[in-house]
Amino acid sequence: MPKVSEDHLAARRSQILDGARRCFAEYGYEGATVRRLEEATGLSRGAIFHHFKDKDGLFLALAQEDARRMADVAAGQGLVQVMRDMLAQPEQFDWLGTRLEIARRLRTDPEFARKWTQHSAELTAATVSRLERQKSAGRLRDDLPTDVLVGYLDLVLDGLIARIASGHGGENLSAVLDLVEESVRRSG
Amino acid sequence: MPKVSEDHLAARRSQILDGARRCFAEYGYEGATVRRLEEATGLSRGAIFHHFKDKDGLFLALAQEDARRMADVAAGQGLVQVMRDMLAQPEQFDWLGTRLEIARRLRTDPEFARKWTQHSAELTAATVSRLERQKSAGRLRDDLPTDVLVGYLDLVLDGLIARIASGHGGENLSAVLDLVEESVRRSG
Repeated sequence: MPKVSEDHLAARRSQILDGARRCFAEYGYEGATVRRLEEATGLSRGAIFHHFKDKDGLFLALAQEDARRMADVAAGQGLVQVMRDMLAQPEQFDWLGTRLEIARRLRTDPEFARKWTQHSAELTAATVSRLERQKSAGRLRDDLPTDVLVGYLDLVLDGLIARIASGHGGENLSAVLDLVEESVRRSG
Repeated sequence: MPKVSEDHLAARRSQILDGARRCFAEYGYEGATVRRLEEATGLSRGAIFHHFKDKDGLFLALAQEDARRMADVAAGQGLVQVMRDMLAQPEQFDWLGTRLEIARRLRTDPEFARKWTQHSAELTAATVSRLERQKSAGRLRDDLPTDVLVGYLDLVLDGLIARIASGHGGENLSAVLDLVEESVRRSG
């Protein structure tokens, strides 16, 4: 495929994803109708669904973008830094509320759940690998298996997403994240 | 008002709440239509909305029931025990997914958010009061303000609700809760 065409496809794809993200943030998963997705992206339904199979496909692609971005930060600076970033710019994570709205589907739709898990695996892998390095360097507590520490950080991340999605960020959450960070560190 | 009538009212109210809880758990907030609420409760819309102003009223009454039950446990055994109970019987908390679905409303509907906060204040108060007692008894770390510890436990609770609502409970979450408990205790 000629270079120019690939660039064009990538630009179009990114235009669709940006619009869809805004649309999900504003109207939620159910509320993001095809009509509203057209308005938000400035493209026809034909163009949108040429790039993405359906609304689920769009949603999962956005989740994957997030997971990649978070994985980059998690790999270098850890999952707590991912959370600090979310806290610093909650408005960039407005669309995450949509993740909560799909909780029911994760419970009841195995195929959707499988795809979702695939997308979040990258973030888990980045977190595990950083924790292992920190452990080797003696900066991490070594009395607990890594999977418990990952499970712990994941649980706090889920809490933070719920909090930001419902518009309750702030106040003492920065101090709370200090406590989270300290509790996985080697003490003394 | 004669006693028999009060008993009758309380029984009817409880019949409605039980049915509504099942209905929200199965269909979600949007999906719990008046028709489905009638089926789930075995009562007419007239009877249901004689006791509760509207669907929001039903939802907030359920949230308050939960908050009271959790507050009882939190007052005596702490918020981590509340979480252990949820983990032990996730199926009883199926309806909590509905809480996630209303996150958008908490962010965008100040009146609804105000009522919601009112209802959850009881749980926070019970948690704070137990933490203060634990602190006095020297069982709690005293290097952090109580509000940070409460914020921390609340954040983990939000994460657990999200996890249970999406059907991802288990595995190592019990060990994760041990870690949470340990991290608010006085060390050594």
